[in-house]
Amino acid sequence: MVFKIGLLGLGTVGIGTAQILLDSSGRNPLLEEIVVSQIGVRSLEKTRPIKFPPGVITTDLVAIVTDPEINIVVELLGGLEPARTMILQAIDQGKHVVTANKAVIARHGDEIYEAANRAGVYVLLEASVGGGIPIIKPLKQSLGANRITSIIGIVNGTTNYILTQMTTAGADFSDALVEAQHLGYAEADSTADVDGLDAADKIAILASLGFGERVQRESVYCEGIRKVSTVDIAYADKLGFVIKLLAIAKISEKTESRILQLRVHPTLVPKSHPLASVEGVNNAILVEGDPLGQVMFYGPGAGSGPTASAVVSDIMNIVAILKSNNHTQTLNPLLSCTHQHYCQITPIEAIETRFYARFLTKDVPGVIGNLGRSFGNYQVSLESVVQIGFKEELAEIVVVTHYVCEGNFRTALDEVRTLETIKSIPSVLRVL
Amino acid sequence: MVFKIGLLGLGTVGIGTAQILLDSSGRNPLLEEIVVSQIGVRSLEKTRPIKFPPGVITTDLVAIVTDPEINIVVELLGGLEPARTMILQAIDQGKHVVTANKAVIARHGDEIYEAANRAGVYVLLEASVGGGIPIIKPLKQSLGANRITSIIGIVNGTTNYILTQMTTAGADFSDALVEAQHLGYAEADSTADVDGLDAADKIAILASLGFGERVQRESVYCEGIRKVSTVDIAYADKLGFVIKLLAIAKISEKTESRILQLRVHPTLVPKSHPLASVEGVNNAILVEGDPLGQVMFYGPGAGSGPTASAVVSDIMNIVAILKSNNHTQTLNPLLSCTHQHYCQITPIEAIETRFYARFLTKDVPGVIGNLGRSFGNYQVSLESVVQIGFKEELAEIVVVTHYVCEGNFRTALDEVRTLETIKSIPSVLRVL
Repeated sequence: MVFKIGLLGLGTVGIGTAQILLDSSGRNPLLEEIVVSQIGVRSLEKTRPIKFPPGVITTDLVAIVTDPEINIVVELLGGLEPARTMILQAIDQGKHVVTANKAVIARHGDEIYEAANRAGVYVLLEASVGGGIPIIKPLKQSLGANRITSIIGIVNGTTNYILTQMTTAGADFSDALVEAQHLGYAEADSTADVDGLDAADKIAILASLGFGERVQRESVYCEGIRKVSTVDIAYADKLGFVIKLLAIAKISEKTESRILQLRVHPTLVPKSHPLASVEGVNNAILVEGDPLGQVMFYGPGAGSGPTASAVVSDIMNIVAILKSNNHTQTLNPLLSCTHQHYCQITPIEAIETRFYARFLTKDVPGVIGNLGRSFGNYQVSLESVVQIGFKEELAEIVVVTHYVCEGNFRTALDEVRTLETIKSIPSVLRVL
Repeated sequence: MVFKIGLLGLGTVGIGTAQILLDSSGRNPLLEEIVVSQIGVRSLEKTRPIKFPPGVITTDLVAIVTDPEINIVVELLGGLEPARTMILQAIDQGKHVVTANKAVIARHGDEIYEAANRAGVYVLLEASVGGGIPIIKPLKQSLGANRITSIIGIVNGTTNYILTQMTTAGADFSDALVEAQHLGYAEADSTADVDGLDAADKIAILASLGFGERVQRESVYCEGIRKVSTVDIAYADKLGFVIKLLAIAKISEKTESRILQLRVHPTLVPKSHPLASVEGVNNAILVEGDPLGQVMFYGPGAGSGPTASAVVSDIMNIVAILKSNNHTQTLNPLLSCTHQHYCQITPIEAIETRFYARFLTKDVPGVIGNLGRSFGNYQVSLESVVQIGFKEELAEIVVVTHYVCEGNFRTALDEVRTLETIKSIPSVLRVL
C-alpha cells in the first residue's frame, strides 16, 4: 500500500521531514509505504537543499488539503493563520492531520478536535512539545493508569540556552540572546521564546493531556526571562540553585476537587533536582503520578532533525492504524481527544510557592528586623535571610521564604516597599 | 463495553495492577471499562492485601487462559515455566497478552510472536524493561523514523542500588547486597540481578525493538558486578568517572552492514554523562539515532506501583484498539512484532572500547616502561598511566586506554601477566 502525504510548509522542520521520507533505508520499513505527494510553500523561487520532481511543490495550499489522493496533511506552517484554516479544511475533507504547531493547538485545539472527532480523523501533535523527545504519545498511551499530580518541564530550548550561557559563561541576557540568534537558536523576533509564550502554549497542551481536561491558553500565568540577571544567577548558585524557565502544571495541594496551577516563570531549581542539569537547547519534562512516581523525558527540544523525527513518528502511527483498520469505525480513544470540560485553574495569587527576593537597603542596624516584621505580618515565613554584599553604599540582602501563599507574599512586599530603609527590590523569583 | 482481564500471578506487580484496576477514579476513564475477571495464583491460602469476591482467585491457570469470556491475559508469573506455556495457550485461544516477563520474552520471543501473528493478537511488554518508564512503546511508536545507532541503559535497579551504596556510602559489595535484600530491592537469590542476566534479557529486548531484528539472548556478552571493588570506585572517582552496570546495544563502527555489539558489564562512565547521575533503584535508557540525536528516559525501574503502571498502560492500549476496531483485520505493524532475521553480533573480542586496568607491581624503576611496551606491542594506546599509591610493598598503577580492539587488549594483558615486575592485575573494566 502507498500512503500519500501533503506537506504544508518547507522550513527547517519541513525539510527535515522530507529528508527522512525520501531516504528510508535503515529506518522502520513502514516508511517505504509513505510518499510525499504535494508540498505547499509560500514562494516557488526560494533555493532549497532538496530537489523535488516538477509539480510536487506548489503555492496552492487549498489544492493540497482538498486533494482526494492525499491521506495525511502535515501542517508545518507555524503561526495561527493560515494554519488553523488549512487544518480545519483538511479535517473537513476526511484527512488525518499531523502538526508541529503548538500555538494553533493551544489556542484552537477545542475547535480542531471537535471537528476531527466529527470527521473521524486523527490530529497528532508529537512535534509540538519537546522537539524530538517522545512526550505526547507517552502521556496519551503510557501514563494513563496514573493519577498525574504534576508535569514540570524545561520546554523552550532558546531560553534554556540563554540561561545556560548566562550561568556558565557569565554572559548577560542581551549578549546571550544575540549569540542564540547568531547560532539559529532564537528567532529575530524572540518575544514568543523570551517572554515565555511558547512555553505557555506547550504546558497548556501537556496539562490537557496529562490531566484529561481542556485548558484555556489564557489561563496560563506567564513570566519570561528578560528580568533574570547574572547577579541573581550568581546568588542562586551560592544558595545551591540554578535558574531555569520552568513550565509547571500541577494539582494545587489542599483541595479536594482537581484544581490546577498552570504557570511559566523563571525558577530557582535546587542543583540536585533532575531538571537542574538540563543544559543548552535540551528540553526535559518530569511527570509525577500515582502509583508511578517520577519519570523524566530528556532530549533535543528543537532543531530540524529531532522535530522531524517526531513529525514522522506521527505520520507512521496514522499509517499503521490505516493499514490495520481499513474500515475506521471509532477513533482510538487514547489517540483522539475526548476532553469535555475545562479544568479549573488556581489564580496565581492563591498558589503556594517559595520565593527568592533581593533587596537593596540602607546599611543601618535593624534592616533585617524590619524586613522580617513586614513578612511576618502576612504569614510569610523566611527560610533564610542573608546579607550578601554591598552595592555602592547600599547593603544587598537576599531572602528565601518557606512555602507561602503568593498573595500574602505580594502584600508583604507592598509593605516592604514602604519601609524607609528599603531602597529597591531588584528581583523577585519563585523557588521550586 | 466491558473488557475482561485474566491475571496470572498476584505477587508485587499483580497486586499493584489489581489496585489500579479496582480504583479507577482520577485515572484515564478507559479504566472504567476494564474488569479483573479471574486471578490465577499458586496458593489460595496466602494472606493478601486486597480482598476479591469469591471465585475470582483460582489456582487453575489453564481455566483462565481458556475462559471464553476473557479478552486479555496478563502474565505476571515471572520465570520461564509455566509462563511460556500459559502465554502460548492464551494466544492459541485468540486472547491478547500483556506480560512483564523479560526472561520469557528474551528467550522465547520468536515462538511467542510467531504464534501471536498467526492468531492475530497482540503481546505487549512495556513492564518488562525499565519498570514504570515508558520505553518499549516509545521505541516502537515514536522513534522509528530514525536510524538508531545505540541504546545504552541502566536497566537493573538492584545493581544500580548496590553500586550507588558502594559509591556514596563506601559500602563493600557484600554489605550493599545484604542491605538491598533487606530493603526488598534484591531477591534472596540475587544471581539474575548481580551477574547481569536480568540486564542482558532487557537489552536483548530493547535491541530487537530498536534495530528491528531478532536477537538471540545467548549472544549478549554478560559480566556482573561481583568483582567491582570500592578501591576501583574510588580510583574511578579520582579519574572523573562513576562505575555503572551498563547494558549496551550499538552498531559496531567501521562496518557497512549492520552488525551489533550487545553487552552488559560494569563500566566507567564519565561524570558529565547523562547516565552518571542515575542513582539508587532508578533506571535510565539513552537512545541515540539519526536525525534525532540523544533522548533519555528516566524513572523508577522497579517496584509494585511503577511496574503496574506499565502493565495497565498495555492493557489500556489493547482495550483502546478493541474499542476502535471491532473486526480486527491486520495487526498494527508498530505494535506487533514483524522481525524476520536475526541480527549479526560482533564477538566481544572484536569490539572497540576503552579500558581501565589496575596493576600491582614491584616498586622498581622501569615498571611503567615495561607496561607501556607490552601494550604498544599490540596497538594498545594508553590515555593515562598513573601510579596512584602503594599497597603493602607493591606499587599500584592504574591505566586508562584509548579506544582499542578488545582482542588486542586481552593479548597485551596476557603478555603483561608474564612480566616479572607485575604481581597481579586486580581489575579490568571497560570505559564508556
